[in-house]
Amino acid sequence: MSPFTSRRQAAVAVLGERALIREIRRWLGNASPAAPFGIGDDCAVIPPTRRHQLVTTDPVIHGRHFDDAVPPRAVGAKLLKRNLSDIAAMGGRPVAAVVSLALAPETSTAWLRGFYLGLAATARKFRVKIVGGDVTQAPAGFFGAFLTLHGESATARVVTRTGARRGDHIFVSGHLGGSLLGHHHRFTPRLAEGAWLATRAEVVAMMDVSDGIANDLDSLTTRGLSAALAGRDIPVSAAARRMARRSGRTALAHALGDGEDYELLVVVKEKSDSDSLKRDWARQFPRLPLTRIGHFVPSGRLPADAINLTAARGYEHLR
Amino acid sequence: MSPFTSRRQAAVAVLGERALIREIRRWLGNASPAAPFGIGDDCAVIPPTRRHQLVTTDPVIHGRHFDDAVPPRAVGAKLLKRNLSDIAAMGGRPVAAVVSLALAPETSTAWLRGFYLGLAATARKFRVKIVGGDVTQAPAGFFGAFLTLHGESATARVVTRTGARRGDHIFVSGHLGGSLLGHHHRFTPRLAEGAWLATRAEVVAMMDVSDGIANDLDSLTTRGLSAALAGRDIPVSAAARRMARRSGRTALAHALGDGEDYELLVVVKEKSDSDSLKRDWARQFPRLPLTRIGHFVPSGRLPADAINLTAARGYEHLR
Repeated sequence: MSPFTSRRQAAVAVLGERALIREIRRWLGNASPAAPFGIGDDCAVIPPTRRHQLVTTDPVIHGRHFDDAVPPRAVGAKLLKRNLSDIAAMGGRPVAAVVSLALAPETSTAWLRGFYLGLAATARKFRVKIVGGDVTQAPAGFFGAFLTLHGESATARVVTRTGARRGDHIFVSGHLGGSLLGHHHRFTPRLAEGAWLATRAEVVAMMDVSDGIANDLDSLTTRGLSAALAGRDIPVSAAARRMARRSGRTALAHALGDGEDYELLVVVKEKSDSDSLKRDWARQFPRLPLTRIGHFVPSGRLPADAINLTAARGYEHLR
Repeated sequence: MSPFTSRRQAAVAVLGERALIREIRRWLGNASPAAPFGIGDDCAVIPPTRRHQLVTTDPVIHGRHFDDAVPPRAVGAKLLKRNLSDIAAMGGRPVAAVVSLALAPETSTAWLRGFYLGLAATARKFRVKIVGGDVTQAPAGFFGAFLTLHGESATARVVTRTGARRGDHIFVSGHLGGSLLGHHHRFTPRLAEGAWLATRAEVVAMMDVSDGIANDLDSLTTRGLSAALAGRDIPVSAAARRMARRSGRTALAHALGDGEDYELLVVVKEKSDSDSLKRDWARQFPRLPLTRIGHFVPSGRLPADAINLTAARGYEHLR
């Protein structure tokens, strides 16, 4: 379904801004509290917290993060889930979100309703309140929704991307690659898993996989180190294998470079019992694998059979 | 200056996403702290606060909030100031912001540099940290920057839009109208004024004027009441008078409907000494007038000479 309509009566332009905002509040329902704790004042008000606050922002833009094949509810859900995945990667819990829309006047009211129903359902599921936003007219053919999500640390600490040392293990949750076949909007943000990992003293650093591990591992790699991954250890998804049959590239290449996996990439202390981590994980999350895929070595000391991550890098945006 | 360039070497596309983000961090300089308190991790981290937190979001989009006549530094400044004005309207103080960019590949790097230098200068001036963001490619011809600003209450309370009663006075800061002649990007957010007003017990409710008082007063008007304004009391700006000479409309019409004034609209208790409020204000803010422009009456009891606000309403967005 396209976000746009050629029937003027079916477009948001006939509503005007005020009526549209009323509709949005109706679609959000109890996912959006009353002002000043929600939509309707100059700012939204969030009660004080004694924990560290987390803030992240990610959009969905038509033609880039979704196309007409993705149902509008899935687009609304994806917008929030992309941001939830960032909160998960810090070991946090989500609290409240604001959504800024830039939309063409010919945006379909029915499509936008689906988008907000999907957003609201996901917000309820993960206990996020939609507390504010903005609606601005954009040029013809444009639809973008820009969400900023606030959270707080779920435990005493926040897990950053920093701290990996030589010898530390690299783990990843789930399976990688082929997200374009549906995972890119059907994924589940790893909130429970991230919060659990933050309680484990052997977990040093963490991030979520959005651009493919070949790209993202760079952000976890301390200067002077390299990530040594063995191809046979990478948990390749069935979708990556299906993609490979079409593309002529290997399933491993898809697993390393496709991106939008929204799994957790975790650095674990060298001197720790990684078997006990895996055993405890399996008890907590029996349906989701946690796989050791490699470790950090000094730069220039990569084993001969380690994956060449530079060659495996996927698409770079804006290029 | 246009945000776009036809010279490929001068466009952000030649940089690619990673190099562009490095440039943005350089342009922001000390307005952006190091990760995890700033750009570079999955989320930005903000230290805990014992005060109520405030959140607001407003964008600038090319062709809507600015055109090629506005210098890029002024566009970056305007983006932050629009949001600062919302924090001011709650009697708050700003803390940290995230910025999500959606930009065409042909966006000019020089233009974007100016934009970020303007944003950074304004952030330093008002002590806001730019703690995170996102950069996403948009279709040709599009530039939008979506900022979410976090603040906290500056005093024990947050001043909302709610609470006006019959008889309460309506005040406005500064002068109104004609913002298109330059005020729309040269304005100063009324942060000190808003925080001061929040300390005054006689101040009931407050908001900032973004769509013109004829539109915005609606949000302050309790059900069952109407705002009775006298035309002679409206502080009409010199720019509104200049606009009137060109447009054939009255200067008062411009003052009521133009919007983008970013002044404070304030509801003051009927039973208060509004002379003492004005006297204390003049001591604090000798260069900015605070003008009583009317009061609230029961609906249907508008004096015959009161302004017809419905007729004075300006432009409605998306229509």
